[in-house]
Formats: sequence, structure tokens, C-alpha cells
Amino acid sequence: MLESFDFKQEAGNYDSFKRSELGEKLDRLQRIVSNLDIPVLILVDGWESSGKGFVINDLTRELDPRFVRVEVFEEATDVEKKHPSVWRFWQKIPSHNEIAIYDRSFYYQVFNKDKRTNKMLKQRTQELLNLEKMLLDDDTIVIKFFLNISEATQEKRIKKLEKSENRSYLLSDEDYEQNKHYEEHQMWFDKVLKATDLQESPWHIINAEDRKVASKEVLAITLDKINAGIERITRERKETQAVKRDFSLEKDQLSLVNLSQSISDKDYDKQLENLQQEAAELVYKCYLNNTAIILAFEGMDAAGKGGAIKRLTRYIDPRSYKIHGIKAPNTIEKDHHYLWRFEQNFPKDGDMVIFDRSWYGRVLVERVENFATQKEWERAYDEINQMEKVQTDHGSIVMKFFLVIDKNEQKERFEDRENEIDKNYKITDEDWRNRGKWDAYYDAFNEMLQRTNTENAPWFVIAANDKKFARIQVLKHFIEHIKAHISKEDKKGARVNV
Amino acid sequence: MLESFDFKQEAGNYDSFKRSELGEKLDRLQRIVSNLDIPVLILVDGWESSGKGFVINDLTRELDPRFVRVEVFEEATDVEKKHPSVWRFWQKIPSHNEIAIYDRSFYYQVFNKDKRTNKMLKQRTQELLNLEKMLLDDDTIVIKFFLNISEATQEKRIKKLEKSENRSYLLSDEDYEQNKHYEEHQMWFDKVLKATDLQESPWHIINAEDRKVASKEVLAITLDKINAGIERITRERKETQAVKRDFSLEKDQLSLVNLSQSISDKDYDKQLENLQQEAAELVYKCYLNNTAIILAFEGMDAAGKGGAIKRLTRYIDPRSYKIHGIKAPNTIEKDHHYLWRFEQNFPKDGDMVIFDRSWYGRVLVERVENFATQKEWERAYDEINQMEKVQTDHGSIVMKFFLVIDKNEQKERFEDRENEIDKNYKITDEDWRNRGKWDAYYDAFNEMLQRTNTENAPWFVIAANDKKFARIQVLKHFIEHIKAHISKEDKKGARVNV
Repeated sequence: MLESFDFKQEAGNYDSFKRSELGEKLDRLQRIVSNLDIPVLILVDGWESSGKGFVINDLTRELDPRFVRVEVFEEATDVEKKHPSVWRFWQKIPSHNEIAIYDRSFYYQVFNKDKRTNKMLKQRTQELLNLEKMLLDDDTIVIKFFLNISEATQEKRIKKLEKSENRSYLLSDEDYEQNKHYEEHQMWFDKVLKATDLQESPWHIINAEDRKVASKEVLAITLDKINAGIERITRERKETQAVKRDFSLEKDQLSLVNLSQSISDKDYDKQLENLQQEAAELVYKCYLNNTAIILAFEGMDAAGKGGAIKRLTRYIDPRSYKIHGIKAPNTIEKDHHYLWRFEQNFPKDGDMVIFDRSWYGRVLVERVENFATQKEWERAYDEINQMEKVQTDHGSIVMKFFLVIDKNEQKERFEDRENEIDKNYKITDEDWRNRGKWDAYYDAFNEMLQRTNTENAPWFVIAANDKKFARIQVLKHFIEHIKAHISKEDKKGARVNV
Repeated sequence: MLESFDFKQEAGNYDSFKRSELGEKLDRLQRIVSNLDIPVLILVDGWESSGKGFVINDLTRELDPRFVRVEVFEEATDVEKKHPSVWRFWQKIPSHNEIAIYDRSFYYQVFNKDKRTNKMLKQRTQELLNLEKMLLDDDTIVIKFFLNISEATQEKRIKKLEKSENRSYLLSDEDYEQNKHYEEHQMWFDKVLKATDLQESPWHIINAEDRKVASKEVLAITLDKINAGIERITRERKETQAVKRDFSLEKDQLSLVNLSQSISDKDYDKQLENLQQEAAELVYKCYLNNTAIILAFEGMDAAGKGGAIKRLTRYIDPRSYKIHGIKAPNTIEKDHHYLWRFEQNFPKDGDMVIFDRSWYGRVLVERVENFATQKEWERAYDEINQMEKVQTDHGSIVMKFFLVIDKNEQKERFEDRENEIDKNYKITDEDWRNRGKWDAYYDAFNEMLQRTNTENAPWFVIAANDKKFARIQVLKHFIEHIKAHISKEDKKGARVNV
């Protein structure tokens, strides 16, 4: 039961301070974490009427408001409902100079059992835990509070609110429901709290019978936990030793690709338009089915990604998809978790988004050019798999295309681009520099293909020495995969969105 | 009638080209406008079933998809409905390297008469025209198409769509309604087209009886209009001569402020908390009324804006407001119209947003430091007034506070900050540099106060040599203004949102 979580009074040191003084200390700490590029995420959850607003008010009171952000998660908006449920929490994560306070933790989704099945709740919990772990790994300080009040106190507070002229806003069915079935909820909360209690970010159960006492305790714990976080993160940043790797390549997938495959112009012309029409129809079907489609294109420089995308989308209604060309992150993107900018652009149900280069940059260019530490890109394989699984579990389609050309073909295309005035803009010194690292990229490609080729979000490796052959292959794989998905969905019957 | 708008066949030059060739020409033009930082906005409107999708497909087909964005404006989302209706178009304006294509122009809102009154339609039209003019002034190329089909053609197309298995998606009540009252709609369209036909961006009425012919015409016009736009904008950029000014200061408002006003510590302590409580209650009332509150704080450096904001918000539920500290725009913000980043952060109905420095930067720091040309800041006064009026016409409250200190007081505060270790971070070399331009800022302040002090969005000029006096004044003005607004609303009765 909840008692088992009783907070060990680490905060004793602050007994002699006033709440406002603790707030001032927090203000200085905020400047320190901001200087150190450490994001802070504070989750405030608890019973209905347990005083979350009061506590959050005290937390923010002395902070420089430009660096603190309170996010309220009420009923999802209609746009949010068209994404995986964890998506809206991703959108609001703190940047590297922010403290974000979530009114209700994201675990609220599982605290509130609703009508969902156990399997669904388990999946949700895992998704949320994965999010929290990714943030922790990204040097975020996460502090979690659960405000605990007794059945009697809750009842008393509800009675008091009933007398307010704003009772219709202040009280919801949920307040009554919780109070009526207090013990049942208590058992469930206890279960969720245990399941989501992480070593680096344990739950702090706050006795909230007296709001002022509770608030002071929250402030004191926040101070301690931020200090502890600063210590941990600065230490870890200093320990830059390489991570031991236990990866071994099972097969050199790239060498297995038969690059001599080609198609005649005649066959190409004969097949192309029909395939394009079919692709467009399938996208329209997905739109009708409310199924989102996410495509990622990777490959060697000049492998023909842009051309393949153009052929694929030829007959697709341009109002139903967006293409994102991925370049180096801008300053705001750099100030967030590396996956944040992709989450921002994931399609809502029924839409399609094509990424020309993608989140795989983390294990490709960022790995090869040392923009990410070994530790960072090493864990990225799992993070990426998890992120894609959230999408496919939600019912979205995720397909990844890898276009392969050989070193000679690349050279010819580079020279071609340099010589043709209209393609000139496509080739830069950087392309030639990258080419100098062909082998390092080659290894990174192979490892990526092996470690992120999942059943739910497969890689399609395409021989692209012959551009036209590659375009046809992309279309064929696209059609086949979407068709298979649709027929599987048809068998399952209508998807239920909860 | 619509005929009066018949497009003069400028596009004759392109008769011998194929649609795909025109698309390729557009592709190159896209790179030119992108290199020149010229945003392009293409609005495609017209009758139901007139083939907008087909035309947009042709427009985008050959373009580099990373620089083109198609935006569909269907029914507003629930978040969009909680903002002025022009807000969602602001969110999606093209950045300086983009072509944005709006499926339905923003004038769709007035094309579709709905149940709105003439007064409302007039106001909407004006708001949309103002948006378009602001974009044009910001060197955007705007091209507007209206696809015209006859009553008979529309009927034929509807009949054909009825046979499709996806008819429920492809046909709406509106198709039938338009066709049934074709002439009535035609007259209304004609009226709106005339009212929104600008010299720099006239409507192009396209005969869309044959979709392929229409599409080619749209492509040809787009090519011509982009070229014409490039010519106009590059010429205007070269003509950097100063704009003739006809401003004269009516009164030196700043000199009229009695800076010796002060409050005793005793009185301050006695009044402060009550005023803070009252402010919090009023904000809550606005939340209940679905009224948004927008506050802007400006003033000399070290005038005490931050402190005043902190005192004002002391008892306000931190979940109901956000504070934005405005710094120099980041790269993405720089790539958009200067008002875009503020529009992005305007509150939805019932919320409050406080800007610590604001859009007035355009006529203050950007003017004094020459970050904006004279022409740009000169027209900004009107643009800002218009932007604020959109908000207040929507029912939001806009208040602007200007905190005044004198030169000596500023010097003392700067030195104070330098000497106190905890305030050290608040003072930089830039502050001292700005101080060197005291007179230039003084003039800019005065002009701003005179030209943007509107009845709907007034300035409150606060004597701030005594910090505590200033905080109390801000609270008092805030309370008085909000109270007046609420009592006026109460008299009017419930606001109708359309």
C-alpha cells in the first residue's frame, strides 16, 4: 500500500527555512542547471483535491518565469488524440535551459484506469517508462511527486468545494468517483507507483493533509534532488571513457545487395505509372482508415533518395502528405532530446510523412563525425526501436528504405552533378569529405541495418546503381507492405482508439 | 459577375510547353526565391469540385518537396477555435525559403457566408486583408487563384462523384448546397473577389472546365507572377532611400511622468497581498468567461519589469498563464514575418500570456540599433495596432505596461547589480551600451506611446523609480481594467463565437 513508499525525511536540513526562502534557493539552482544545459522535469501527481495547484504555485513562485514552464495535461485535444498517447508528452519536454512542471504526471494515463484492458495499460506504462528513461539518459533531472491524502480529508475538501460558486469547474465526476471507491483506487495507485519507481527517479509520496507542510516538503526535496542530479550528471560527463561494445556483424548486408540489377527504359515506362497510381490509391485507403504512414529514406550520398521520393509521390494527393528534408538540427532542436524534432513532425492518423534522411542520423553522421558520444549513439538503436514501436503499436505504418550504390557509381554521380549547371547546387565540398569516410559510413550502415530491422518497422534495402530500378523497387515494396497491412487490419476489424 | 475578372492571357508565352516542363521551370524559380529569402504564398480557392487538388498536384509535382508546403484548411481544430479566426493562417505562413500553398485561400472564411452577419464578414475580410498586406510588405509574393466552373459542370462532376465508393468522403453537403443555389453563390463570390482584389496580388480567375488546361494556366501564371515578384522585390530592396516621416510628437509623455511618486513600506505591505488576491480572482473569472489576457511589459533596462510581473502573478494559478521573455529572434523566427513568433504564443481563450518585452521591439531596439529599416519600423505601428485589434475584437484583453525610470536611477541599479553577486548575471556590457543610446531610446519610447496607445489596447505608463510604487500601480491598473472589461461583457451578454 501507499505507506510503503513513505518518504525518508532527507529534507530535514531545511526545517528552519521558510517556503519563500526555499523558493529563492531553487531560483539560484535553476540558473545553475540552465548554465550546465541540464533540463529538469518535475511531475506532480496525486489524488484529486490533494492540492497540486498549491504545490506548483510554491514551486514556481520565486523562479525566473522565462525558464520555467507549467504544462497542464487535461483531456487530449482532437489533434493529440490522433497520435500515440505518449506523443503529447514528448511535445512538451523541457529544453536544456528549462524546468518543466507537468500538472499530473504522464503516468496519470495509467493511474486513471478508465475502461482500458490490462494489456493496454501495460503497454502504455512501458511506453511512458521508456520516455522517462530516454530523458534520464539525456541528462534530464526527473523528480516525481505523488500527493497523498486520506479518504476523510478528500471528502472534507470535496464538501468544501461544493460550497464554492465555481464548483462546476472545481469539481468533476472523478473527484466523487475516487472518493467513493477510495480503497480500490489506493490499491491501483500503489501498483502503478511501484511499477514506475525508477532508481534514478523514485516517486516521492508526500503527505498532503496540510498543504503548506506538503509544499515545503516538495520544495526541499526538489532542491536536494536537483543538487544530486547535478552531481550525477557532471560526474558522468567527466567520465568520458568509451563504452564497451559487444556488437558483431552477423552479415554484411550491403555486400549481399546485387548492384548489377537494372531495368530497361521500356519496362520502366510500362510499369511506372501503374505502380504510382496504385500507391496513390493505397495512401487514400490509409487516409480513409485513419492510418498514419511514416517513411524514412536513408542511403549513400547521391543514391537517389530525392528522385525515388518524387516518383513515389507522383499521384498522391499533395494535401495528404508532407516531406521533411533532414539537415543538421537548428539551435532550438539542439536544445532538446535528439528525437524531439522528429516527434514534432510525426503524422496524425490518416496522414503520411516522408523523411528524406531521418532520426537514423544519430547512428550514421553523428556517429561517424563524433557529433554524438559513443555512449549516446550506442543506446540510440534501442531508443529508435522503441520510438518506432510506439508508432506501430498505435496502428501507424513505419517503413524504412535504404538505397545502396557503390563507390564508383557515387563518384560518377558527383562528377555529373558538378558538370551539370542545373544540378550544381546539389553537390558541396562536404559530399566529397563524406566520401572520404566511405568505410566508416559503410560499417555504420551495416550495424544500423542489423540492429534496427524490426518486424514492425522493417528496412527495405534497395539496389540503386540503376536509378530507375531503384524507383520501381521502392514503389513495389511500398505497395506490398501497405497492402499487407491493410489486409491484416481488415481481418482484425476496426481499430479502437483509447 | 465573375466574368468581369477574366484573366488576360499573359500566359500565352507558355503555350508550347508541357505541364511537366512548366513544373521544372517552377522548380528553378523556387531555388531563386529561396536564395533571395523571398517567401511565396499561393492561395488556391474556387467552387466545390472545381479541381483544386488536381491543380495543386501539378504545382508541387516538380518542386523540391523540402521547400514547398501544402496546407489544408478544413474545419478548425478545437485549439484553433479558441483563437481569432485569422490566427491559424498566421501559424502556417511561409518562411523565407518556402513556397506555401493554401488549399482554399484564407478568404474561404468569407466566401462561405454561413450564418454570419454582414458586420462580422466585413470585420473578417478586413483582418484577412490586413494579413495579406503585411505579408506583401514583408516581401512575400502572394498569388491568388479562383477556379471557376459553370453550374452544369459542377452538377456533372457531383453526379460522377456520387458513383464513387468513397463518395461519403468526396462529397459534402456544401457541394449540393452550392450547386442548388449556384447563382446566389456566384454573386457572393463576385463580391468577395472584388473586395479582396489587391493591386499587388489580384485574383486570377481560372476557367476550370478542363482541369488540364486550368492546371497549365495556373502554372504559367505562377511562373509569371513569381518573376514579376522577384523583379519588384529586388528593385525595392535596392531603393533604400529613407521614407519621408510626418510624425510630430504631441506631448513628451515620459517627461510628464512624476517619478518622485513613492509608497511607504508599511502601505506597500498593507496593500500588496489584497491586490494580488484580487488580481488572481479576476484572472480566474476570465478563465471562466473564456477570455484571453495578453500583457506586454516594456520599459527602460532595469526598470523593474521582472519584479512587477512576479508580484502581479503571485497568487495566480501557475497553470493558467505563461510568461515569455523576449530575446533576439532565433534563426527560425528570423526566417518569418517578425510578428509570427508572437502569434505563435498568443493565448487561447481563457488563458493569460505575459510578454516580458514584446513585439514593440520592432519600434524600439530594432529601430534604434538599425536591425529594421526605417520603412519597416515606420509601418510597424499600424501593423501592431492591427494585430492587437484582431485580439480585442475577438474578445481578448490586451494591456501594455511601460515602466519609466530616470537616467540616474538606472545607473544606480546597474551598479547595484554589478556589485551584488546574486544579481550579477542580470547585467551585461550590452546594458551599458544601450544606456549610451538613452536619447534615441527616449524618442522611440515616446513615439511608440503616442502611436500605439489605442482605446482597445491601451498603454499604462508607470512611474518606477520607486519599485514598490510601480508594482502596486501595475496591480491597480490591471485590476481596474479587467474589472471594467468584465462588467462591459456582462452587459453585452454572452459572447457568440463563430
